[in-house]
Amino acid sequence: MEGKKKDVTIYDLAHELNVSPSTVSRALNDHYSIGKKTKKAVKQLAEERGYRPNTIASSLRTNRSNTIGIMVSWINRPFISSLISGIEKAARESGHQVIISQSYDKPELEKDNLQALYDSRISALIVSLAMGTTDYQHFDLFTNNGIPVVFVDRIPSIHDVHKVHINNFNAAFEATEHLIDQGCTRIAHFGGARHQSIYEDRRSGYIAALKKNNVDVDESLIIQATSLNAEEGLRLTEQVLELENPPDGIFCANDTAAVSAIQYAKKMGIRIPEELAIIGFNNDPICEIIDPPLSSVDHPAVEMGEAAIKQALAMLEGEIATDSATRVTLDTQVVVRASSLRKG
Amino acid sequence: MEGKKKDVTIYDLAHELNVSPSTVSRALNDHYSIGKKTKKAVKQLAEERGYRPNTIASSLRTNRSNTIGIMVSWINRPFISSLISGIEKAARESGHQVIISQSYDKPELEKDNLQALYDSRISALIVSLAMGTTDYQHFDLFTNNGIPVVFVDRIPSIHDVHKVHINNFNAAFEATEHLIDQGCTRIAHFGGARHQSIYEDRRSGYIAALKKNNVDVDESLIIQATSLNAEEGLRLTEQVLELENPPDGIFCANDTAAVSAIQYAKKMGIRIPEELAIIGFNNDPICEIIDPPLSSVDHPAVEMGEAAIKQALAMLEGEIATDSATRVTLDTQVVVRASSLRKG
Repeated sequence: MEGKKKDVTIYDLAHELNVSPSTVSRALNDHYSIGKKTKKAVKQLAEERGYRPNTIASSLRTNRSNTIGIMVSWINRPFISSLISGIEKAARESGHQVIISQSYDKPELEKDNLQALYDSRISALIVSLAMGTTDYQHFDLFTNNGIPVVFVDRIPSIHDVHKVHINNFNAAFEATEHLIDQGCTRIAHFGGARHQSIYEDRRSGYIAALKKNNVDVDESLIIQATSLNAEEGLRLTEQVLELENPPDGIFCANDTAAVSAIQYAKKMGIRIPEELAIIGFNNDPICEIIDPPLSSVDHPAVEMGEAAIKQALAMLEGEIATDSATRVTLDTQVVVRASSLRKG
Repeated sequence: MEGKKKDVTIYDLAHELNVSPSTVSRALNDHYSIGKKTKKAVKQLAEERGYRPNTIASSLRTNRSNTIGIMVSWINRPFISSLISGIEKAARESGHQVIISQSYDKPELEKDNLQALYDSRISALIVSLAMGTTDYQHFDLFTNNGIPVVFVDRIPSIHDVHKVHINNFNAAFEATEHLIDQGCTRIAHFGGARHQSIYEDRRSGYIAALKKNNVDVDESLIIQATSLNAEEGLRLTEQVLELENPPDGIFCANDTAAVSAIQYAKKMGIRIPEELAIIGFNNDPICEIIDPPLSSVDHPAVEMGEAAIKQALAMLEGEIATDSATRVTLDTQVVVRASSLRKG
């Protein structure tokens, strides 16, 4: 009797082969932990039974779409667009599409747009928080309905969630120590909102590097910015350069404001790096456009995106529980350019 | 008898007041064309009947969501992100959210991601085409289902659609004539794919300005780029500067490649603008970062976004038929900076 055939799932294959569903999933994805023989058996059965790649099954299970939602602060930041491209590439390889929404760093827009993503029936959500977000209840809409949520880069300061981030403390420590190595003794820091752990960690790394190298910590040189945009970068640079005892180095928590610092200092006739050494954060393309080129911290944006979707897919495949907690921490690298290189 | 109450629509209010639905919609939105008395009557009845703002009704009509979909080439281009912010601001003011998808300039990704937007049940679609897109059948999915589609900037070369664009011919004409005014006599043009009307129109405007000013049109100076990215900008600049008779000016169809032209020429010791005057297109923020600052054509990106969603909302409100055709053309402005200013 012909009828509408039920789609074959990973669970059906696992049952028939007497292995776990995650073994089937890994075998189909050529995971290193699965032996050749098992891979061959799984792939052969998948072909015989007409199994269609992974996410069809999960989409049937959850009655949601084959689409991953991404919520970010600003799509036009180079770091964010690289992060998205990393997510998108891995999503396509697993048979998913991606839709994107931005919060413009406003918690209320984050909430409204999350609802739109939910109504769009996304099967998983990847989020980098708005600068102003301090509570996380609006994500319950997803987690309470079993929809995987992975936070990336700007992550919540709570424990029971899935996170992908960089080691911001180490990154800031190394950037600050680089300025000290170049002979700076009064280093200013332009940081972001301290309730965002990435900015708090960068501030802590900066202070730790000063202390380790017996450089005074001067509160008048530690500035918490609101948005770290270009205008604010100009204003904060003016502010610290007008101090009675101005800085001879600036470690800025992004490149946008660091570029403004270069522009303002140049306009004032201050020589970079001789009189003022500057290092930013993110290694945006603008670092190589500005003159002198800007030293920065390279942020593995594409890899972060890949790691985030890997976690989301593992939840969709049932390999990780959505209500568990995981953390992936990636390393960064200081990229030295002319804006901070005093010693050849 | 209590039951689930049917939501009041603009059509119900229009019927009861014996006016057109578009009059009701305009009155609720304080449109200038509607008299005070009518506005008052409409608003009063809307309140009495418990009418909820506009898009709820259209969403009930079409059984789709309150979300506008946006399909663009690359979210990280400043022009595109400004376009999106224009759409998003106007969308919010009308009670809509926005979700975004990118094609990375690849027609096959445009098709796949359009399907994802469709599956997300968007109520209207705003599109700027992928560089490689030459046929438009994949948009039938929306138009055949009565979902408004508005093309913006990179628009199809067919007539029966809704379009918002700039006058690319005039913009290119003015940019080229500016270089001629500055004394350039051999002006190269780096253009985009000619099947995209925006690039064909820029090329035509460039040629028309040369002809009008009795400057020879030299095919060896007219280059059709593949993507106009930074690497290509370097390569094309090298190519034209190695000609036996190199150019003394470049009009580039975007800023990314024009910045590369400045960087390459500087590296070669060529003085800008004295030996080589350069003008780009889009007026990206990078124009003020590069040294010397880059002249460009200012592209009213936010206004284009606003115009596009205005058309989409007019269709959702039934003021314009989705299967009709409209065209909105916006003006541009040449912004002169040091990269092309030879005469003070």
